[in-house]
Amino acid sequence: MTNLVEGISGSRRDPWWDTYSQRAHNLRQSEVRSLFSVVSRPEVVSLAGGMPNIKDLPLDALADTVADLIREHGAQALQYGQGRGWDPLRQDICQIMALEGIRGDFENVVVTTGSQQAVDLITQIFVNPGDVILCEAPSYLGSLGIFQSYQADIRHVPMDQEGLLPDALEKAILKARADGKSIKFLYTIPNFHNPAGVTQSLERRRAIVDLCERHHVLILEDNPYGLLGFESEPLPALQSFNPDGVVYLGSFSKMFAPGYRIGWALAPHAIRDKLVLANESAILSPSMMGQMVLNAYIRDFDWFGQVKQYRGMYKERRDAMLESLERYLPVCSWTVPAGGFYTWVKLPEGLDAKDMLPRAVTGLVAYVSGTAFYADGQGRDHLRLSYCFPPPDEIREGVRRLSVVVNREKELVDLFSLPTNNAVPQVKNINNAHPLKSGN
Amino acid sequence: MTNLVEGISGSRRDPWWDTYSQRAHNLRQSEVRSLFSVVSRPEVVSLAGGMPNIKDLPLDALADTVADLIREHGAQALQYGQGRGWDPLRQDICQIMALEGIRGDFENVVVTTGSQQAVDLITQIFVNPGDVILCEAPSYLGSLGIFQSYQADIRHVPMDQEGLLPDALEKAILKARADGKSIKFLYTIPNFHNPAGVTQSLERRRAIVDLCERHHVLILEDNPYGLLGFESEPLPALQSFNPDGVVYLGSFSKMFAPGYRIGWALAPHAIRDKLVLANESAILSPSMMGQMVLNAYIRDFDWFGQVKQYRGMYKERRDAMLESLERYLPVCSWTVPAGGFYTWVKLPEGLDAKDMLPRAVTGLVAYVSGTAFYADGQGRDHLRLSYCFPPPDEIREGVRRLSVVVNREKELVDLFSLPTNNAVPQVKNINNAHPLKSGN
Repeated sequence: MTNLVEGISGSRRDPWWDTYSQRAHNLRQSEVRSLFSVVSRPEVVSLAGGMPNIKDLPLDALADTVADLIREHGAQALQYGQGRGWDPLRQDICQIMALEGIRGDFENVVVTTGSQQAVDLITQIFVNPGDVILCEAPSYLGSLGIFQSYQADIRHVPMDQEGLLPDALEKAILKARADGKSIKFLYTIPNFHNPAGVTQSLERRRAIVDLCERHHVLILEDNPYGLLGFESEPLPALQSFNPDGVVYLGSFSKMFAPGYRIGWALAPHAIRDKLVLANESAILSPSMMGQMVLNAYIRDFDWFGQVKQYRGMYKERRDAMLESLERYLPVCSWTVPAGGFYTWVKLPEGLDAKDMLPRAVTGLVAYVSGTAFYADGQGRDHLRLSYCFPPPDEIREGVRRLSVVVNREKELVDLFSLPTNNAVPQVKNINNAHPLKSGN
Repeated sequence: MTNLVEGISGSRRDPWWDTYSQRAHNLRQSEVRSLFSVVSRPEVVSLAGGMPNIKDLPLDALADTVADLIREHGAQALQYGQGRGWDPLRQDICQIMALEGIRGDFENVVVTTGSQQAVDLITQIFVNPGDVILCEAPSYLGSLGIFQSYQADIRHVPMDQEGLLPDALEKAILKARADGKSIKFLYTIPNFHNPAGVTQSLERRRAIVDLCERHHVLILEDNPYGLLGFESEPLPALQSFNPDGVVYLGSFSKMFAPGYRIGWALAPHAIRDKLVLANESAILSPSMMGQMVLNAYIRDFDWFGQVKQYRGMYKERRDAMLESLERYLPVCSWTVPAGGFYTWVKLPEGLDAKDMLPRAVTGLVAYVSGTAFYADGQGRDHLRLSYCFPPPDEIREGVRRLSVVVNREKELVDLFSLPTNNAVPQVKNINNAHPLKSGN
């Protein structure tokens, strides 16, 4: 469990060191955060971060809308709200979710401080230390960090090009139960997976939902990127197949912008009740201002037109990424995302993404090592490249720089027929049995 | 531990009932929340809630400021920020805290989703189930709810008119240690206490800080109302006496408005590191929009003039409250707040604030029963009245209506010389030994 994250600071020179909770010792700095100061240097091309590119938002019109809102409804927007969220926005959220086949009651929507907080609250209300959470291999590092902080037993389940493998999922469920463990939920990102870049097929969705229903395993469906598909309109959400067995998480961060920190959970009624209590306990109420601005944005703007603009802009960047990979990095293989922000790149045999990172940064390009996306030390043979934030020319230059580093590492490995750092054992890639289809 | 809160919903008809965590079963609906639908009826005068009265904010000017911010810096304000908060606002926060004698480094400030979230994060990083948290008797119900959700062993320490009693605090520390317990912190609200309405004297502050330092007990100083004093400028914060031994919590909710949900913690460096990690895990980053708006508000507006306006407005309401209590409720006693939002009212012998509440609501007035402010079933002989939100005439009418209910209850009690509901045992009021000074 040590490869996901860097060690936490703290020592016996801290007078309060002996008084921290178990959970505090499980909080770790993510690899992405550790990189932050380096990759924000302007000379570095960062293919590491997941910041959406929001510069094409209609800022002038938005400024007018928000100003009107403050003038006319400021006393409401600046006040406390209710822990469950503001009803008009909860209704808007239901309309947005309908695009993915969800027929939800707005009463079952809980508004949160970004969907990250929804992951935190769901983990809080389900997970005791040692309980099992099933996750894809690899999985979103922010959620893995939360699961670790609650001392969950995280078990990765392999995927292929169509997402999570049902057979492997069933095997993991049976194994956990044979171990006498309580499985609290399956955490899955069905669309444009972070970091794997793959999307569950319709058939796969049905199989996963059926399997979980049969084994009475709750599904936590995390869907921040669902509307950002490049090839087609969204597939139905897992939630639409079994509303009683799925908690669905959505976010305005990618379809609009992250700056108001507004996300949501749609949950079966009884779970919804607990989520509201947990939300009230944690923050009293989500920001009324943020909720009212988003409601006005949904009402007054062509928000779906904005989503389409995003799709086109990110598609162009994805294409730049894939073309550059073909051109500069034929020694690697990668996934071909049909939407979202990321591709998942497999390094040539013997290269180590984590060890290589400092040399990449010296070469003025940054990525996230695959190790960040596993709780169990896997991932050294992979890295995540994001194409969401840099413009296409920077993406091309970034991949070119990366290729210089990779090719140099590969030469060394080939020369010595050894891993570049033989202190690091090569871990087994459990994806090998069902390799993610290569884009190369 | 059952009197603080109402039972949680849930039953075996909920298919996920068997899978909730221990913590989920400790989440309860607060008495204030249970009241919400009733007290929001327009015919009811609510002396229950703690909503600030923000209708005098300069909304037109604020609308212009926010519009300029979005036009000129929208791409930054709508983006993700960093988990610790935005540096310019962290620096503003240090200037605000300087008014209470704090010389803090902005690097030790962590911006949170209201100061409620700061209480949650601090509890997360310190408290294992069964650990002791020392609280005033009574204490803020929102924090008690958090402490209970983390399965803390909450121990109340009596107060008098000058706040927490050092002798009783020392006794509680020694008792907890004799019980073999780990004390994680003392939670205290030094200014205009919620709900008790009292303020720690300077001498008392020094004694509390010294005592905690001697016994190596961390102090969590919660100070949302500190700038809202009616009689004088603020006393020095506990933090200013021992920066290494105090985590200080502040909020924009009362000195400006709650709608952006921005609060903060100032913590010793090592604790600050853990708070940042916990904040990133819970919400990734606080709202950049909220932080940039507050920074602009502090920069462009006479924010301290606004604080002075609030002081005058709340003082007028407090005076209306105290005059009405003298006029209509001479059978009660109460505390005289020198600032903030609340007075703490002691009922005549034999009356029960919790049992009386439905009859008060029928009489079209609402309050919060004292039981909401204890984790151990005390408080039936007290109620909290808030004067922050209703205008003075409504406050007078509310107290008049309350007096009708109280006097009727008292007649019954006197007639039968019995508690009105003899199913309810009268609990011992541990404040009796050091009664809060009466305003009557």
